[in-house]
Amino acid sequence: MSIPVSEAMSKPQTIGVFDSGFGGLTVLRALIQRLPRAQFAFLGDTARLPYGSKSRRTIARYAAESAQFLVREQGAEFLVIACNTASALALDAIQDAVPVPVLGVIEPGASAARQVSMTGDVMVIATAATVESRAYTAACRAQGLRALEKACPLLVPLVEEGWTEHPVTAEVIDIYLAELVGEAAAQGMNPDTLVLGCTHYPLLRRLIEKAVPAGVKVIDSAEAAAEAAVRLLNGRLATVGDAADAESQPPAVRCFATDSVEKFERLGSSFLGRPVGRVELVDLGG
Amino acid sequence: MSIPVSEAMSKPQTIGVFDSGFGGLTVLRALIQRLPRAQFAFLGDTARLPYGSKSRRTIARYAAESAQFLVREQGAEFLVIACNTASALALDAIQDAVPVPVLGVIEPGASAARQVSMTGDVMVIATAATVESRAYTAACRAQGLRALEKACPLLVPLVEEGWTEHPVTAEVIDIYLAELVGEAAAQGMNPDTLVLGCTHYPLLRRLIEKAVPAGVKVIDSAEAAAEAAVRLLNGRLATVGDAADAESQPPAVRCFATDSVEKFERLGSSFLGRPVGRVELVDLGG
Repeated sequence: MSIPVSEAMSKPQTIGVFDSGFGGLTVLRALIQRLPRAQFAFLGDTARLPYGSKSRRTIARYAAESAQFLVREQGAEFLVIACNTASALALDAIQDAVPVPVLGVIEPGASAARQVSMTGDVMVIATAATVESRAYTAACRAQGLRALEKACPLLVPLVEEGWTEHPVTAEVIDIYLAELVGEAAAQGMNPDTLVLGCTHYPLLRRLIEKAVPAGVKVIDSAEAAAEAAVRLLNGRLATVGDAADAESQPPAVRCFATDSVEKFERLGSSFLGRPVGRVELVDLGG
Repeated sequence: MSIPVSEAMSKPQTIGVFDSGFGGLTVLRALIQRLPRAQFAFLGDTARLPYGSKSRRTIARYAAESAQFLVREQGAEFLVIACNTASALALDAIQDAVPVPVLGVIEPGASAARQVSMTGDVMVIATAATVESRAYTAACRAQGLRALEKACPLLVPLVEEGWTEHPVTAEVIDIYLAELVGEAAAQGMNPDTLVLGCTHYPLLRRLIEKAVPAGVKVIDSAEAAAEAAVRLLNGRLATVGDAADAESQPPAVRCFATDSVEKFERLGSSFLGRPVGRVELVDLGG
């Protein structure tokens, strides 16, 4: 996949970022750090979350509608699907629905794991829906890696409660990781890499890094997706301005949600690492 | 509200029980204990949960459709809305949508609190959506009680993880209740009653009773709703057979869900206190 050179390259390009909720703001944060002069439009389809409990067909329809909003109404020329469920179940449908390049979060996560793993054995933590899709296992296998996935259903609620540094959260992470490491050993695996397969988990990175066994590297799929986006854009956007220059002015970010604007505004800033500002409400229909 | 005497009274009557998910199975459990010879039809609108993040209008439409399924297709002659969000936001809409008596969970919970509270000050724990609706505060005020509500967003995920006796859950409950008791004291209240305002919380009753200050009574709104249903039915169903007789045969229960039948079957038994058996999938539309 490469980006056609067009007139759009001469002005700041709009990158669309889509999630079913607002966890994908961690991906937007990683993108802003690398492309400080780009324009961003973020859409959280909060009225219809969670995608994880819905059928593939319904998810594909919702995700395609969301992608079309970002491309048609916000002028996005490149899309990042910052949602593991939509990446796992609807990437093809989104690519069919819009005429711009589309990048998910799963393949970049697996790709980054391949770059750091020496043993070829990888652990993945994610939501139940993502684990049930087995998308990381498939993406890792395509990279020649063996993956063991574990659902960690309490981590998203703990992040949304704001307990990102709380002793209870540290205890829950210890329990989940001990189970995962024990299961890997039982299967004769020798994992040296842990992939964070959920856009909420970067907020727990410090606690997770304290809890993993010595020598296990932590891969953040939000960071990995942002790196992949930069590579796909061939560095063209980075030349529009440099980071030092950009720090003097706020990034051009517009945030949209289909419902629950208050929760988005309240929690979003900790995900984005800066104030999300006013979140605009949009109606994509039922 | 009273139930018209009809021919239906001579045969086991069908009681419809509705929830957005399967937490309402705790209400069904309490109903079965009191009305072992009745027939029950339970519907969990799992495809469209969580109701809590949706608008009042959307919740009313979903709840009305669910109620109509139970009445028209399952022959329910009495409905219990075993969902705090739907009880708070859509009870009128449901009563308009079906020609049978409809009982919610909130008013019975407030009513039971009035019967046990000596001080007139009541604490309520519930989900964020229920707390934001202020429905318990209003229902308690109508009973002459002063209520202080607290959202406990981690408790539902902890129950669904199966950690109903886990030290982490005990710690989380301690933290939430300490905050609530402190807030009550700061407001000059002297609460002697705690209402469990969420259908998941009865599974945590043992841990919650250990965590409340001495002298504080715990009211389970699932039990309270079942008691109110029995009173409304005037004891007629109870005379069809007695509990000892009924124990020799399984209760007549059919469970329906609009999605996620697997999760319902896997977790539902611990809520119902017996196997839920096969859950039938129904399509109520978008």
